[in-house]
Amino acid sequence: MKKVAIIGVGHTKFGRLNDKGLMDLLCEASLDAIEDSNTTNKDFDSVYVGAMSPGAFNQLSGVASALVDKLSLLPAAADHIKNGPASGGSAVKAGFQAITSGMSDLVLVVGGEKMTHITTPGYVTSNVATLTHPKVERRHGVSLPSFAGMLTRAYLEKYNAELDWISDIAIKNHRNGTLNPKAHFQRTIEDFMKSAIQKGKGNWDDIYDFLKDDKTNPIIADPLRLFHICPISDGAAALILCNADKAKEYSESPILISGIGQATDTHIVYEREDITTLKALRICSEQAYKMAKKTPNDIDVAELHDAFEILEAVQSEDIGFFKKGEGAKAAHEGLTEIGGKIPINPSGGLKARGHPLGATGVAQVVELVWQLRGEAGKRQVDGAETGITCNFGGFGNNILSILVERM
Amino acid sequence: MKKVAIIGVGHTKFGRLNDKGLMDLLCEASLDAIEDSNTTNKDFDSVYVGAMSPGAFNQLSGVASALVDKLSLLPAAADHIKNGPASGGSAVKAGFQAITSGMSDLVLVVGGEKMTHITTPGYVTSNVATLTHPKVERRHGVSLPSFAGMLTRAYLEKYNAELDWISDIAIKNHRNGTLNPKAHFQRTIEDFMKSAIQKGKGNWDDIYDFLKDDKTNPIIADPLRLFHICPISDGAAALILCNADKAKEYSESPILISGIGQATDTHIVYEREDITTLKALRICSEQAYKMAKKTPNDIDVAELHDAFEILEAVQSEDIGFFKKGEGAKAAHEGLTEIGGKIPINPSGGLKARGHPLGATGVAQVVELVWQLRGEAGKRQVDGAETGITCNFGGFGNNILSILVERM
Repeated sequence: MKKVAIIGVGHTKFGRLNDKGLMDLLCEASLDAIEDSNTTNKDFDSVYVGAMSPGAFNQLSGVASALVDKLSLLPAAADHIKNGPASGGSAVKAGFQAITSGMSDLVLVVGGEKMTHITTPGYVTSNVATLTHPKVERRHGVSLPSFAGMLTRAYLEKYNAELDWISDIAIKNHRNGTLNPKAHFQRTIEDFMKSAIQKGKGNWDDIYDFLKDDKTNPIIADPLRLFHICPISDGAAALILCNADKAKEYSESPILISGIGQATDTHIVYEREDITTLKALRICSEQAYKMAKKTPNDIDVAELHDAFEILEAVQSEDIGFFKKGEGAKAAHEGLTEIGGKIPINPSGGLKARGHPLGATGVAQVVELVWQLRGEAGKRQVDGAETGITCNFGGFGNNILSILVERM
Repeated sequence: MKKVAIIGVGHTKFGRLNDKGLMDLLCEASLDAIEDSNTTNKDFDSVYVGAMSPGAFNQLSGVASALVDKLSLLPAAADHIKNGPASGGSAVKAGFQAITSGMSDLVLVVGGEKMTHITTPGYVTSNVATLTHPKVERRHGVSLPSFAGMLTRAYLEKYNAELDWISDIAIKNHRNGTLNPKAHFQRTIEDFMKSAIQKGKGNWDDIYDFLKDDKTNPIIADPLRLFHICPISDGAAALILCNADKAKEYSESPILISGIGQATDTHIVYEREDITTLKALRICSEQAYKMAKKTPNDIDVAELHDAFEILEAVQSEDIGFFKKGEGAKAAHEGLTEIGGKIPINPSGGLKARGHPLGATGVAQVVELVWQLRGEAGKRQVDGAETGITCNFGGFGNNILSILVERM
């Protein structure tokens, strides 16, 4: 199989970007990646766009065809790849296959979403809830946050874990986010607490008390509260992929996509043997490790899909870093911090970097590229040579894992 | 590059299918293809679903993830590919690349759409119009039918052609449709005329007079009338693809995908040098011919994208069968009928087989497989060994061409 290198990356600021539309964001990330890769005057063969719901959120279809024209990349082939919140990861895989198939030599992959302009209450959550099973789950009012609440409850009971340990993940990711200029949130949870105290909203002995206050951190899906759940964000991220044989022509520090896996699980969540195990992640990460001839012990840094903070704990187990039931405790003990045994989400993760659905799977890879190039600034994981992602579609029924390493 | 074979096909009835939902249709076509390919007990590696707007039409997202579970193909990778009315063709290309990349050996590709249940006037046309440029075209009320009307007017004037010749394409495709049990319409235009006469709606000397009657064939987008435009349909079509080296293990008559091309053109239609030339089709069909080492003279049968009958004329030129300006006349002279120089749309095309958007690009390939296997019944093109498609996205700004031949 041909090898695929990442020779350029782009990443808009994530957040509430009032003056930018979806196409603006996709263009901005793409142009940054093109410039970063020194391919400004090159002919691209293919463009893949990962986005979950440009139709529902932005009244746009044909976003890939539109983008390739806006970027003056005609007549490059262009397709829009949809896989819910894992649309970005699926777009990376499509670009990877375009090159390994021999059909393309130079490929742009971009993921993005523009959501914060939507003011109808519940519109976004309802749209995302169309990922659940319509007859067995959705008609009864199930949404992704409610599944995450149930998963949290089951996890805490089964493994005798504490909700504060899940909070520790949010605390870590907000702290990491302050080190990432592109992140949606630029404040630690301690900052939020101090601000609330200054505004006279209350007084707390420690951060866990603050995080248990119904006014400042209301319950969204018991036991999960606001700070256990990622925000709705706008943003886009992009990669330039090329045949690895030619990577050094463009970049001094190309990064190899050496493993990639994707697997599905039951649509109906209650049909799974164990809600606290992400079987699809076990399978797809195993595929990625096998393709790259690596093991979890070889990984220096990971970007996981903490749309809900419980997911980072569970994923850190099923991707092979910790034994079942030990992921939340490991986070509590600091093992997943920058400088810890296995740094997870130095970018701030979905919690603090933000989660513009289709952007996330691409942004995870962009963060790893920065880490492996040594360009991650204050959040740099020292000497990182190998990284892996988990990009989570539906409620875990379609997951991708992408393994990257220095060439 | 690895070679890719089609070892099984499935195709639901197209039409107004009141008792079936989108997932039912996707399942039915998929199961038929699986059975046809003798892979019932095999593990699939990947599933690709082509569908334009399951979100807007069916309140479904994650259709690929849902389908792979419904078909008990877990944990196969699954993605949803969107490229407007060319979503089916793009899904075939994604499946092709999954195999040529070496990532998959056995792949299901299925395209479908469920639209006829939508009763809000203009909802479907407005949704499809989101493919046009939002600022330059859509805000002024442009829709795909209005573009087709303008293209027809320009073509008739530039090439001194007659509208009756465009009608001849509709007459041919309806006649072909009566030979295809899966087609949406099972009546010739002559049948419609006789029925109107019997109902006392009028009396006509010949079919062209009937087709100029404002009551029985109203103008939709001047000069195009109802019978020059494809219907809104429900339906799905599926292919099983495998590494060609293993094709004979499954099928006695595998069909090779020997060429595939995709190209884009300007999003804003007026920016094109010549509205009567489909530049993207010229490029993508040339890619397909080159990959397959064929020329237009080698083609025995073609399935083109006659969403509007003018498109079949223009496509028959830009895909290389006729000189510019001679496509409509060639149809008028019978050169594109079954038994003619180059039979086009023996299936009935989009006009009579119907046009469930995402299904079309896959259904075109299914028809060619039946033709090349000699299984096309009353519409069989004698001795067909090689066929090609045109699947048209947006208003010609993203086109695929797929070339198939006997192994």
